Amino acid sequence: MRQSRLFGKTLREVPSDADTISHQFLVRAGMISQLTAGVYSYLPLGVRTINKIKGIIRDESNQAGGQELTMPVLHPLELWQKSGRDKVDVLFRLKDRRNRDLVLGPTHEEIITDLVSKNVQSYRDLPLMMYQIQTKLRDEPRPRGGLLRVREFDMHDQYSFDIDEAGLDISYNKMREAYANIFARCGLPALLVEADSGAIGGKDSYEFMLVAASGEDEIIFCENCKCAANVEKAVSRKSKIEVEKPLSLEEVSTPGVTSIEALSKFLKVDPNRTLKVVLYSADGQLVMTVIRGDLEINEIKLKKVLHVAELNLAGEADLKAAGLTAGFVSPVGLNSKVKTVADDSVVAGVNFVAGGNKKDTHLKNVNFLRDFKVDLIQDIAKAKAGEGCPRCECNLTSTRGIEVGHIFKLGTVYSEKMGAKFVDESGASKSIVMGTYGIGVGRLMAAAIEQNHDDKGIIWPLSIAPFQVHLVGLFMDNPKVAEAAGKLYAELEAQGLEVLFDDRLETAGVKFNDADLIGIPFRITISPRTVDANNIEFKRRTEKKAQILPQAGIVEQVKEIIAKELAVSS
Amino acid sequence: MRQSRLFGKTLREVPSDADTISHQFLVRAGMISQLTAGVYSYLPLGVRTINKIKGIIRDESNQAGGQELTMPVLHPLELWQKSGRDKVDVLFRLKDRRNRDLVLGPTHEEIITDLVSKNVQSYRDLPLMMYQIQTKLRDEPRPRGGLLRVREFDMHDQYSFDIDEAGLDISYNKMREAYANIFARCGLPALLVEADSGAIGGKDSYEFMLVAASGEDEIIFCENCKCAANVEKAVSRKSKIEVEKPLSLEEVSTPGVTSIEALSKFLKVDPNRTLKVVLYSADGQLVMTVIRGDLEINEIKLKKVLHVAELNLAGEADLKAAGLTAGFVSPVGLNSKVKTVADDSVVAGVNFVAGGNKKDTHLKNVNFLRDFKVDLIQDIAKAKAGEGCPRCECNLTSTRGIEVGHIFKLGTVYSEKMGAKFVDESGASKSIVMGTYGIGVGRLMAAAIEQNHDDKGIIWPLSIAPFQVHLVGLFMDNPKVAEAAGKLYAELEAQGLEVLFDDRLETAGVKFNDADLIGIPFRITISPRTVDANNIEFKRRTEKKAQILPQAGIVEQVKEIIAKELAVSS
Repeated sequence: MRQSRLFGKTLREVPSDADTISHQFLVRAGMISQLTAGVYSYLPLGVRTINKIKGIIRDESNQAGGQELTMPVLHPLELWQKSGRDKVDVLFRLKDRRNRDLVLGPTHEEIITDLVSKNVQSYRDLPLMMYQIQTKLRDEPRPRGGLLRVREFDMHDQYSFDIDEAGLDISYNKMREAYANIFARCGLPALLVEADSGAIGGKDSYEFMLVAASGEDEIIFCENCKCAANVEKAVSRKSKIEVEKPLSLEEVSTPGVTSIEALSKFLKVDPNRTLKVVLYSADGQLVMTVIRGDLEINEIKLKKVLHVAELNLAGEADLKAAGLTAGFVSPVGLNSKVKTVADDSVVAGVNFVAGGNKKDTHLKNVNFLRDFKVDLIQDIAKAKAGEGCPRCECNLTSTRGIEVGHIFKLGTVYSEKMGAKFVDESGASKSIVMGTYGIGVGRLMAAAIEQNHDDKGIIWPLSIAPFQVHLVGLFMDNPKVAEAAGKLYAELEAQGLEVLFDDRLETAGVKFNDADLIGIPFRITISPRTVDANNIEFKRRTEKKAQILPQAGIVEQVKEIIAKELAVSS
Repeated sequence: MRQSRLFGKTLREVPSDADTISHQFLVRAGMISQLTAGVYSYLPLGVRTINKIKGIIRDESNQAGGQELTMPVLHPLELWQKSGRDKVDVLFRLKDRRNRDLVLGPTHEEIITDLVSKNVQSYRDLPLMMYQIQTKLRDEPRPRGGLLRVREFDMHDQYSFDIDEAGLDISYNKMREAYANIFARCGLPALLVEADSGAIGGKDSYEFMLVAASGEDEIIFCENCKCAANVEKAVSRKSKIEVEKPLSLEEVSTPGVTSIEALSKFLKVDPNRTLKVVLYSADGQLVMTVIRGDLEINEIKLKKVLHVAELNLAGEADLKAAGLTAGFVSPVGLNSKVKTVADDSVVAGVNFVAGGNKKDTHLKNVNFLRDFKVDLIQDIAKAKAGEGCPRCECNLTSTRGIEVGHIFKLGTVYSEKMGAKFVDESGASKSIVMGTYGIGVGRLMAAAIEQNHDDKGIIWPLSIAPFQVHLVGLFMDNPKVAEAAGKLYAELEAQGLEVLFDDRLETAGVKFNDADLIGIPFRITISPRTVDANNIEFKRRTEKKAQILPQAGIVEQVKEIIAKELAVSS
């Protein structure tokens, strides 16, 4: 491709709305262009990388036994009502000319399960693996970070169908391996992280994460036993407190002391000797949570414990309605009947300081069971770096990551709701056991940049670079340069190499800056000086220095390097 | 692919709602599955053919100089308001969570023109050709024929951008050639047909049509001069009437005679000696059309002449409101002021019989200008087979066709509205000159079947067949058959051939019927009898008889045949 003909201009300025590195470089390199919030066009350079990623995904999906199909973007609302996901927040809804309710597919579990229910009858039809690479549409509340969180994107979604859990394990492991291969072949080291399985339920759920400072997700992991979990799901060993004899309950005056920090200072006790109360409105009902003062509530865990879809901090009005005193609420001597959930940290400690349920009052020496009871005891605490690993003696560490893949044992959650059954060998009708697997293609491209860049631009892994070689002609109005560069361009292309040929009449500075910005792995420069010496200048994007090499044989050399490096990653 | 593992079952029964051959066979062969009206999933066999068609399209588009990009499905309504197409009938509209108006892209002229307006400044950036293969969504009033008219489909849409009409001609000719190549490589002889350019205006507009009885479109063509036009656009030489001396106007009583047929019988005159009046509501306004009684109004032409978006036959109420007498309306002695458009056939004749503008009355010897005037005279007649070719002395013929591609000189219609300008060599700002080119991928697959089938099933052209070879094992429970077929399957795949291996335990009848239905070009059968004789049975889908051939060397033979036949089409 001649760069003078390439659609999509490089920009020197950082776009004002681009908050992440990948967003900045994707726009500046002319790879994407925003149409409206969270909706992007992919320009030719972007499409080339996307098509390469799709090629790798297809290849590995086929090898794992996947059959490609394509399901529509337009879904009838009824199928989403059948699964119970018709109230999902990100669902785009619309009506057609006959006033029928439609939704735009944010994912395709409903459609594939319906399709399978019509095409599978017997255990002989199973196992099955199907996938597509198809547009998803989600009315995200906060699109952000360029391609990191968008409203329209291409997704690889694969689905497995088995007769039992043992079959699901096999399919799931195949897909875990396929996904690991995909990220490896894209040149992206991904971390396998335990994840929350979300509102729909289901069993094992793991995310593939690329570690990056701009990641939306916090990963809690143990360097020692190598376990890693999304903070939404992570469990830690909570610090132990010395167990002492329970003392008698004692009221203390604490004027204006309404936070754990203030309380801890005022009474000179460690926060882990206090009880924190947080009040929520859970699907509209007031819920009180009680946790040790040094810990935080993990709302994802709490949602799951409560089996609710919506969880918000309770407002002043909610408290007033229940007759509670903000800042001094306590499970002790509660006059109001409020559902109460305690973190298991509350059970292990004694003689806590807690609220007094009246203004400017706390209680000392509060003990679980003797002084208060709760409706539920569960781990609802947020795990933090520095706390103990639940599986070994080490401490946990934290990092940020970008979710690029998700593998998920659904079990029979969907097949039961959508009536996807099969007849087993004994003639009994059973629900099909499902798994679901997904990769956001555009997000993967953006995450690759978050991981692979310097201050000048992108550093593409070879396997997903828009081109393999950036051939730069300097002083293209010099006939000797134009001729030599044109000839080399033809030779490189004849060898099947993918070449972007910068044939523009720009200065060396502009050309090199653009080359660094676009980030093609190998740069070959031809200038009046190199032409006269029968040389070329060769530079890897990953290296600072260029080498002067004889022009003779350069095509074969570059071809060999590329073949070798691609072989390693595949 | 082992057929026992293939997702998608063949059906013996014709689906009750499948009115076209392609719909029946696509469903029965397990290639597509309807999700809701005009919305289909593509099952694995269907996706394989679609991916091959897309591959051929990409290849030819790239060779024509196209750069691939991808534009979104979700569009902000504003861009459609800017072009004036926001009222287009098939537009799906929706709102996002912030109540912003969105539409689902039925096509992408608005988006690409906006994109180009942001990325092109100078004549040096032109010419440009861009394309995508992307989902289109259209709220069609009447989805029909399986994939022939749907609400969601993949489309190849290409756009050219030039500095002037001469540049557009070059781009347009390139694309005409690319499209001809695409259809040829798909094994589908397509007719280039002059077409109406639709509501948006623009200039040259040609459709590629596949001749098929189930086609929605009527094509009028001349065997002699090879010109062809969609009936929407076609012009004919109207039959001449003997010119005689104008006679005096005469009122005749015609009780209950309200049609041309009845009038012609009643007064014993040829229909070409009568005047037919048809009344329309055009964008809400009453319009009278006058045409020779033997001709029909072409409403597409009329719409264009009137520059209106909506045209419906006027109702009784409209006539009453204007004081007109249904069945006897005439342009002669009209008391009401109604806009009147005459077909040019009216000018050439004399002494017509026309309505009398009162019940049970007609007028004889009506002559244009002497007896009535009109607001507009244009060709608004529907051309018919049997009429004369406008370019030569022959008569026109008619056939039905399916539109599979459309090439269209837009000129500056969009670039003016969307502000896509460039600065020319002299420094002047000008609107970019555009062309647009489209192929419906799914419709092409369906049209291929309409053209290539027999009563048993599909007969795929080799280049777009889901597989190249159908290997059928008969009596797969016979260990010798199972071994020989398994070995041959491995050998064929090792040679890079695409093989569907029917390894199921079904009868020969079921297997051969399925093979004929699915329509893979080459069938190789292994049975206990052929194994014992070291033979195989070889059959082309296009031929009635199978041949017995020695098994030795069959892989090489088939490989050679396929390579040769693919080379011819590419």
